[in-house]
Amino acid sequence: MKRMTFLLLVVAGLAGVVAFTASASRHQYQEATPSFVTEIPPGYRDWKLVSVAHEEGQLNDIRAILGNDVAIKTYRAGKLPFPEGTIIARIAWNYVPSEENNKIFGREQSFVPGEQPPWYLQFMVKDSKKYAATGGWGYAQFDKDGKPGPESDMKKCFPCHQAIKERDFVFTRYSP
Amino acid sequence: MKRMTFLLLVVAGLAGVVAFTASASRHQYQEATPSFVTEIPPGYRDWKLVSVAHEEGQLNDIRAILGNDVAIKTYRAGKLPFPEGTIIARIAWNYVPSEENNKIFGREQSFVPGEQPPWYLQFMVKDSKKYAATGGWGYAQFDKDGKPGPESDMKKCFPCHQAIKERDFVFTRYSP
Repeated sequence: MKRMTFLLLVVAGLAGVVAFTASASRHQYQEATPSFVTEIPPGYRDWKLVSVAHEEGQLNDIRAILGNDVAIKTYRAGKLPFPEGTIIARIAWNYVPSEENNKIFGREQSFVPGEQPPWYLQFMVKDSKKYAATGGWGYAQFDKDGKPGPESDMKKCFPCHQAIKERDFVFTRYSP
Repeated sequence: MKRMTFLLLVVAGLAGVVAFTASASRHQYQEATPSFVTEIPPGYRDWKLVSVAHEEGQLNDIRAILGNDVAIKTYRAGKLPFPEGTIIARIAWNYVPSEENNKIFGREQSFVPGEQPPWYLQFMVKDSKKYAATGGWGYAQFDKDGKPGPESDMKKCFPCHQAIKERDFVFTRYSP
């Protein structure tokens, strides 16, 4: 009877190991083919400037594009592709007239950042293995509360960036 | 005769000392009340982002405002005035549509930096003694070749910034 109990425990234990292994490999599989980045890269607001832009229409935002050190180094060297570990950050703010500036300048000419839109933060993270399915780049979007963008929006990233594959899928050019 | 020569030499020497002293104090006077900064602060392009803006009209530029570490620290703490040594950099580029982006997006919506206008770089340097006559800030403007802006333009800096004395003469607010 003792032997029977021992055998049962061994079987139960093995089943547990098998279950754990299956779970782990499923997890590894998920990590091997993700489409999106799920965490805000720390320290991005301290990164160096790549460029700026204004998008009209439904977006109607004004934006800054920053890069981590490897991104900036690659931009300045002008050599593609971007290496592993490159992260490019895009911060967008609502595009609003500055009444304060206009009053001082004496004319309507000044537009500045307002509140953060739902597409406040976007990131591209270079990891050729992890994001092999989307050109080696993981994509991310977060609102001002750190909530990731809806999957329906995120699915639009890569198809659009694919149009500039020859520039390693990166829209923004470096502004000196 | 020897004594005469000696006296002449002493007089000439004293005259030289007087001339030198006068020149030096004139120089010190000039340094004590300059209006403008005459050298581009080194490393400014690596500084952290304060904000971005678009100016319409005759300027028609898109710009980034960067700050050295003491500027960024002060902005983030939200405490005025800016300390000695603060430098704020403003980089402007011509405001141009991105035909490349618009083609991919399928609509006319994207505006990006073009060439550098004559007012490419501007700086505010905080030195309360040196720039006492202009609210404690020295002002600078440079084109893409590093040539300082014309004095006629530079004279317009302080009168305009004076309108926002309560914010330590700084137009740009920090964008999170």
